[in-house]
Amino acid sequence: MAAPGATQVAVLCGGVGAARLLAGLVRVVAPENCVAIVNVGDDTEIHGLRICPDLDTITYTLAGASDPERGWGLKGETWAAMTQLEALGGETWFRLGDRDLATHLYRTGRLAQGASLAAVTAEIAAAWGIRVHLLPASEDELRTRLMLADGGEVGFQEYFVRHRHAVAVSAVRFAGAETARPTPGVLESLAHAEALVVAPSNPVVSIGPVLAVPGVAAALARRRDRVVAVSPIVGGRALKGPADRLLRELGEEASVVGVARRLREVAGTLVIDEADAALAGAVEEAGMACRVAPTVMATPERAAALVAVVLEEAARGR
Amino acid sequence: MAAPGATQVAVLCGGVGAARLLAGLVRVVAPENCVAIVNVGDDTEIHGLRICPDLDTITYTLAGASDPERGWGLKGETWAAMTQLEALGGETWFRLGDRDLATHLYRTGRLAQGASLAAVTAEIAAAWGIRVHLLPASEDELRTRLMLADGGEVGFQEYFVRHRHAVAVSAVRFAGAETARPTPGVLESLAHAEALVVAPSNPVVSIGPVLAVPGVAAALARRRDRVVAVSPIVGGRALKGPADRLLRELGEEASVVGVARRLREVAGTLVIDEADAALAGAVEEAGMACRVAPTVMATPERAAALVAVVLEEAARGR
Repeated sequence: MAAPGATQVAVLCGGVGAARLLAGLVRVVAPENCVAIVNVGDDTEIHGLRICPDLDTITYTLAGASDPERGWGLKGETWAAMTQLEALGGETWFRLGDRDLATHLYRTGRLAQGASLAAVTAEIAAAWGIRVHLLPASEDELRTRLMLADGGEVGFQEYFVRHRHAVAVSAVRFAGAETARPTPGVLESLAHAEALVVAPSNPVVSIGPVLAVPGVAAALARRRDRVVAVSPIVGGRALKGPADRLLRELGEEASVVGVARRLREVAGTLVIDEADAALAGAVEEAGMACRVAPTVMATPERAAALVAVVLEEAARGR
Repeated sequence: MAAPGATQVAVLCGGVGAARLLAGLVRVVAPENCVAIVNVGDDTEIHGLRICPDLDTITYTLAGASDPERGWGLKGETWAAMTQLEALGGETWFRLGDRDLATHLYRTGRLAQGASLAAVTAEIAAAWGIRVHLLPASEDELRTRLMLADGGEVGFQEYFVRHRHAVAVSAVRFAGAETARPTPGVLESLAHAEALVVAPSNPVVSIGPVLAVPGVAAALARRRDRVVAVSPIVGGRALKGPADRLLRELGEEASVVGVARRLREVAGTLVIDEADAALAGAVEEAGMACRVAPTVMATPERAAALVAVVLEEAARGR
């Protein structure tokens, strides 16, 4: 393996957890050596605009421009458009800040001009001075759909934002996944990166759609010994979002063991938090090597320390 | 004819000139008795959003919310989205204020849901408390295209905003006009209104597209004696925009006489400004009855006074 800073790293990413991991990663590894393969199952069209929440969360976080309290969107944001949209009686459950709107206007406009989503993503990242390679997992339409226990099916944003993930889910599917092609560069980076990382993102609705893109799971499985996942479940609970409840609702244990059962085919090692040290044996019984380390990324420094552990495990290989 | 306040009035409209006339009209006639048939040839899609500049100018003006200095958009507007779009390297020649964006988000979202443009227009107007019936001339795609003297063809907004109408035009066409259907209510209001008015809007690119909608010109021609137009040309110049230059470039006189030649088939009377009193005879020779009156609508009071003259002429009939 090359010197740590020169390591080639590919990271499967959802939103906030992945963004924090990446913010730590770029403190350890040269950003241009990092490829983030980002979930697009959350993507949606609202008011005719193409919204890519996970790509944007990662972009804003790496740019140091994300709002730390709200957990999404830009800091110092203004809301004139939403206030006026509310006055018009429009749909405002999906909050779009004025500056954030510019991202969606830019993306939608460029896509309409025929630019690829990867190209547009790279342009937005470059404008923010980001050197990590951000790749949408697929440029084809792939949408996470949730069957509700009470009946009916909703898109991810409707579940997550409109219903504040407070409704029971009976099943999840990734519409369009069968025919979605991985974005050029995705399979290549999975084949060649020295370390492959599954970010501490929701294994069902953030990592799930990435793994559903044909070729991705197989590419990881082939190099399973180099693939290190970080558990998004700590002490039986998701640090953010509904991962714990979703796991339970889908018949899985809401624990690091449940995470291991979801990821064992594509990842050799699971990094779990010290709070879950007692479950390390159960993770290994579930079929993954297990490393215990502080995983709560309260600061970029702590994220960098976690990344060092992850890279160590990837270098070891198992 | 009914009492003036109860008169049923239909107005062919472009943007600013029409908006000012309507603001005067509602001081004279009950707003619910007024139908504005609005040009959609200026409409465009930018960043995936549907923009209807003339409908919006009229809506904002009737709501008392238009910016009087800038001549377009909302007063007290903010520009966070455009500033950020510029930072991203996006196209910002078409300035969209943050609150104005809400209009386009609302419209685009509702159209995507399957609502008709007329319904969306009515919803936006209602939200602003507007009781004038605003009807897009057509709900079908009808786009004003300008052939440039130096070659090439551009859409209206590209000509008007991007090039600041500072390029010579050799011809104008209305793409889609042949198959565009008048919005339900347009022909009915033209058939039944007691007064038919052609607002002082650019006769080529504002009134032209409305007249190009199949059935509209014929409906006016049938009731030509009740149709009163107000000249947008005063003293040989357009009060706003490129009407004078466009008339010249298309081989017409940039004067009230040129306006008369453009409108004589659909309107019986032309109201011209006192500055052009000397041309009244030439207007009559061109084939329209002519009324001289102050036409510069510097205030809603002056606009109301002009409307009184227009309604008087329509009631007289010729």
